[in-house]
Amino acid sequence: MFAAGGSDVANVTRGQREATISGHIVVLAVPYPEVDGILTAFGAQLAGKTVVDITNPLDFSTFVSLVVPAAESAASHIQAKPPESHVLKAFKTTFAATLVNRQVGGVPTTVLVAGDDADAKTSLIDAITVGGVSALDAGALSRARELEAIGFLQLTLAVSEKIGWNGGFAVIR
Amino acid sequence: MFAAGGSDVANVTRGQREATISGHIVVLAVPYPEVDGILTAFGAQLAGKTVVDITNPLDFSTFVSLVVPAAESAASHIQAKPPESHVLKAFKTTFAATLVNRQVGGVPTTVLVAGDDADAKTSLIDAITVGGVSALDAGALSRARELEAIGFLQLTLAVSEKIGWNGGFAVIR
Repeated sequence: MFAAGGSDVANVTRGQREATISGHIVVLAVPYPEVDGILTAFGAQLAGKTVVDITNPLDFSTFVSLVVPAAESAASHIQAKPPESHVLKAFKTTFAATLVNRQVGGVPTTVLVAGDDADAKTSLIDAITVGGVSALDAGALSRARELEAIGFLQLTLAVSEKIGWNGGFAVIR
Repeated sequence: MFAAGGSDVANVTRGQREATISGHIVVLAVPYPEVDGILTAFGAQLAGKTVVDITNPLDFSTFVSLVVPAAESAASHIQAKPPESHVLKAFKTTFAATLVNRQVGGVPTTVLVAGDDADAKTSLIDAITVGGVSALDAGALSRARELEAIGFLQLTLAVSEKIGWNGGFAVIR
């Protein structure tokens, strides 16, 4: 989606702990338990960048609850750690297929983006939008808690086969 | 919607604290701060009934956070208090207009229902469905926390005019 929108996209995969992070926007497309190690390994390189947290801080063995303290979020945990970056929470209502297809059940896919840095939010929203997917400012980074909750709920509905992996929560304006 | 589905519907309004509650399903269509007084006033009459909590436990003056402890929910608060009733959380992704219209942006409206009592959930889902609106079992009452979070997020998007009051989160199966 980002590439389709004209962004230069580079992937850093497991094992490339010496990689140089050259982009302006870094998407942590990783399991939540990997985040701390990644922040430690790449810390200084992330300073000043926009870091997009898309993790599900969830116990996938039980699907019973989020694993972050109830008043917090994975995103707030990441923002609280060095380095000083602009953390955004996004992509919590969008299963992979709805990004590939640009639609969910015939409704255009909308990515909700929460964060405290207005410029970072605008950059991510622009990069998503030119890739053919709508994006909407969902407020401050404190809204990450609600985005993680909706992501959790959406996952529980999908694993229990009440919705499909190409379904979920469509945002109707 | 319930009446359209053939249910007998009676409204108990403010000031009718001596009313007799004759129905099997009681919908608490009230502001969250009113709930404790209602439980006290009607306590024994609610015993054994299905109590549907649709409240938004939210500080509407600030829209900054939910007012229930982070690990809890309005629904769990109600379930924990006497009398022993079957508490469900529902209608948290459905603005009023989407129930009246039976659709949100062209997508059929779906009501998500969480609760621990399977029979109570089935009764509510049936009463909604025959009224022309879809309903889906969203899991245990512990999922009320996520339903309240999504309701909160949906309200913040509407009051900031990012979505309309006839929009919101459509459930795509």
